[in-house]
Amino acid sequence: MDVVVIGGGAAGLKAASRIRRKDAEAKITVVEAGKYVSLGRCGLPYYVGGLVHEIDNLRETTYGAIRDENYFKRLKNIDILTLTKAIEIDRKRRTVRVVNNGKEDELNYDYLVIATGSNPVKPPVEGIDAEGVTTLASAEDAEKIVEMWEEGAEKAVIIGAGLIGLESAEALKNLDMEVTVVEMMDRVAPAILDRDVTMLVEKHLEEKGVKVLTNTKVEKIVEGDGKVKGVVANGKEIQTDLVVVATGIKPNVELAERAGLKIGETGAIWVNEYMQTSDEKIYAGGDCVETNHLVTGRKIIAPFGDVANKQGRVIGENITGGRAVFSGVINTAVFKIFDFTVAATGVNEAAAKDAGIECMSVIAPGPDRAHYYPGTAYIRLKLLVEKETWKVVGAQATGMGEVAKRIDILSTAIQAGMTIDQLSNLDLAYAPPYAPALDPVITAANVAMNKRDGMFKGITVFELKEKLDRGDDIIVLDVRSEDEFKRSHISSEKVVNIPLLELRERLGEIPRDKEIVTVCALGLRSYETARILKGAGFEKVKVLEGGMAFWFE
Amino acid sequence: MDVVVIGGGAAGLKAASRIRRKDAEAKITVVEAGKYVSLGRCGLPYYVGGLVHEIDNLRETTYGAIRDENYFKRLKNIDILTLTKAIEIDRKRRTVRVVNNGKEDELNYDYLVIATGSNPVKPPVEGIDAEGVTTLASAEDAEKIVEMWEEGAEKAVIIGAGLIGLESAEALKNLDMEVTVVEMMDRVAPAILDRDVTMLVEKHLEEKGVKVLTNTKVEKIVEGDGKVKGVVANGKEIQTDLVVVATGIKPNVELAERAGLKIGETGAIWVNEYMQTSDEKIYAGGDCVETNHLVTGRKIIAPFGDVANKQGRVIGENITGGRAVFSGVINTAVFKIFDFTVAATGVNEAAAKDAGIECMSVIAPGPDRAHYYPGTAYIRLKLLVEKETWKVVGAQATGMGEVAKRIDILSTAIQAGMTIDQLSNLDLAYAPPYAPALDPVITAANVAMNKRDGMFKGITVFELKEKLDRGDDIIVLDVRSEDEFKRSHISSEKVVNIPLLELRERLGEIPRDKEIVTVCALGLRSYETARILKGAGFEKVKVLEGGMAFWFE
Repeated sequence: MDVVVIGGGAAGLKAASRIRRKDAEAKITVVEAGKYVSLGRCGLPYYVGGLVHEIDNLRETTYGAIRDENYFKRLKNIDILTLTKAIEIDRKRRTVRVVNNGKEDELNYDYLVIATGSNPVKPPVEGIDAEGVTTLASAEDAEKIVEMWEEGAEKAVIIGAGLIGLESAEALKNLDMEVTVVEMMDRVAPAILDRDVTMLVEKHLEEKGVKVLTNTKVEKIVEGDGKVKGVVANGKEIQTDLVVVATGIKPNVELAERAGLKIGETGAIWVNEYMQTSDEKIYAGGDCVETNHLVTGRKIIAPFGDVANKQGRVIGENITGGRAVFSGVINTAVFKIFDFTVAATGVNEAAAKDAGIECMSVIAPGPDRAHYYPGTAYIRLKLLVEKETWKVVGAQATGMGEVAKRIDILSTAIQAGMTIDQLSNLDLAYAPPYAPALDPVITAANVAMNKRDGMFKGITVFELKEKLDRGDDIIVLDVRSEDEFKRSHISSEKVVNIPLLELRERLGEIPRDKEIVTVCALGLRSYETARILKGAGFEKVKVLEGGMAFWFE
Repeated sequence: MDVVVIGGGAAGLKAASRIRRKDAEAKITVVEAGKYVSLGRCGLPYYVGGLVHEIDNLRETTYGAIRDENYFKRLKNIDILTLTKAIEIDRKRRTVRVVNNGKEDELNYDYLVIATGSNPVKPPVEGIDAEGVTTLASAEDAEKIVEMWEEGAEKAVIIGAGLIGLESAEALKNLDMEVTVVEMMDRVAPAILDRDVTMLVEKHLEEKGVKVLTNTKVEKIVEGDGKVKGVVANGKEIQTDLVVVATGIKPNVELAERAGLKIGETGAIWVNEYMQTSDEKIYAGGDCVETNHLVTGRKIIAPFGDVANKQGRVIGENITGGRAVFSGVINTAVFKIFDFTVAATGVNEAAAKDAGIECMSVIAPGPDRAHYYPGTAYIRLKLLVEKETWKVVGAQATGMGEVAKRIDILSTAIQAGMTIDQLSNLDLAYAPPYAPALDPVITAANVAMNKRDGMFKGITVFELKEKLDRGDDIIVLDVRSEDEFKRSHISSEKVVNIPLLELRERLGEIPRDKEIVTVCALGLRSYETARILKGAGFEKVKVLEGGMAFWFE
């Protein structure tokens, strides 16, 4: 059996390796246009930031072997052709025409794997091709950025505040550069986060000295002396020595398209659950294909290293006679931004709305371990729950603590179709160094059940701000201690501080005819307050969701 | 509505608080025999070890309020009677007789909550009541241990290597004491771990200077000058100044039993899924009740703080007209032991066998984040998978990295009834600082599928040791690099080192008629080796599961 794999990234090489493990005899050839194969591109920002010392570290095995042509040949008997471009697929003759350094060749296949990946897209603005404007999508890009820094670049503008944009911002800031991130949308990481969560992330970025400009469109890149010197956005010029464009990717489908393979609605290659294209002898995986979003049921492109690996395994399994399935993703993602971990899974509010999923949202910050245990950090957790079924359909979290753990639990729960009631009794690993007795995930489920069952009415920070700006006749009842209140509180004359412990004795001070918004640090005491007020006959009480942990001014 | 709660621990107070949140009018009285309520007993080892500075930290809220009688009265209008013992329940008259400082009283109830908790059991050995022999189950115990240390106690013996025993061992070692742990069974934490996992934990304990004696039965405690001076175990005396007994707990059911409530097969109070006892007006929760093990279907006692909290909430919900359910647990547990996190969920091999669940086990160590990212640690993960259904039914993990996260993912997956095939494609949060592209959980699922599908045959460290001890005519083929091999390897003349990269070229050196056991660091290269040998026609090849990461000598 002859197998040709186009693309030496995660999907292609995982497929090739799996085929070899199952079939000792197959002739396997991998064609790669670039100079490296099997390079962990997700590590590039850490190379730029200096945490990973050599580019080669990104193509090493856990035991330190470099995954190059020699490695694949000697270990797996897989032929790797680097600097070789596949230029045509002839499906009738089952051949792939390739070119290396001007020399053409033809490879026969019984099965073909298309793993051509993606390329970064660049917005069509003036000056985008100037010297000093780059993406961060390849080893070459990373080396170029480091080189520019070594040659004295001091200022950087990142265009696009997606995951790669933000990781790049941290990397360059770690090199002591002056960094500005420009984002067209109203928030960072708009594809996975809602604005109440991104407010916290943006605040952290600002605290770390990264300037974040949202709702800002790049109009032009300014050149001088043959290289970039500024970025014009919303009419103002930002001086810079370096521009990193991180405005998304585009799947490389040209070869597949020319071969007449079906291209899906997203513009990526269509595959079935076996990762087979519209030609049963041709499989495809990684950034160049589309897959299913298991919550929305929509087709999406999921250009992530973990997805590519999983798809590659399924391809290898099926080419060697198996019947493995890759059913889809739920857009789980995580990134580190300075001291914060930011993670999300399932849908955010925009995606839910777009897919017609009616959701209830809850915000439930909580400590990531027993609050008396040293090093406890607070996690800001948000859940989206589908109305009527009460299944969890999305989660977002940020903070300095064990954020990724909670999102992985929730990701597993979403994929299993768990309801908030089931989540509420999940048997998670509890000990003081690892979790509070009720894990934030469980507390969030409890808060969601309380909200569903009418135990409290919530109000978001945005809604409260609006009320205050409008001058609504409300009382903001802050029930934290006097000390906590003194340290920081909502700056409005509508704010009254009655510490929770004194509340029952001081109910007389609170007017019964006004709308009351209860506020505390995380939301627990304000919920308790709402219950006490409700019990005492107060009618119009709302809890500020997430408390001061989500407040910003 | 009058509600009486017997017991001021997690279950009782959670129930009381939930009742108040749902019912502003109920008269709620909590009866507590001790002097504190709502004290986080799970934190006691950290108080002893000096990480938590005050006992009162263990009864503080996240915002620093002490949860005492005054707190519950002022905030929640709940009456707490401390140092008050419930001595009789009259179910006909719906009254509870209580005594405080010799003075008797009677409380009426419409609903009663029994949350009497558990007491530590002490083995019936001579000298068990000597001065200096204590448990670590209460604030008083913890204070006493610290006092003895302050007064110069230098040596400690811990009887019982369960979770509390091991946490106590670390705490006392952190005080620079000389610590010996004595365990009757063949391994530490026998209720949740298998011996291949505990070997690693015991090695770590020894490295940290804690002496661990397994298969060792305490025969006698020796006194001198009115206090403990030694422990005789397996015929030898271990000198000591302090003994901590941590040999398990016994639910406090006496009151319930005398009231004629149904006691379950485990000896704990029987409750239905609504946490109702055999008397519909009486609910019970926490350490004094039994619950369901959702994997084995058996009744068990689950004396954990998180379980008590969840049950308390269900009780409060149902007393106020709700219909919440607590369906059971899967014995998820985690503990920190020096630099290691040790965690488990579902069944271990002994529990699976006992419950008649036929399992396949796999061992799959892996890095907890991208291996090139600074600070990566290796997790030793073991999965138990039910044969035929191929559902995951148990997992155990240890190591210095993010162990708890993986066990929480697996715990969620087990509760959702996921198969290894589903686990294999789980969409978890991937970025280099948080996980490798294929998370250890996913790799473990892949290894399990490979084993199920006959891609390799495994051999455990114990089986290999036995073969070597017996002098079987085998070849142990270590395929790590020469450097890795030099640093440490299995000490036997049967061991041959052929680095994996050279394997295909040196196949001629390997005899075809002998059984071959392939070995590497984690199991990946030895699996690759097995596939290469299989492809080259070798018949009798086995992979050492877990590789050198699980080896011990």
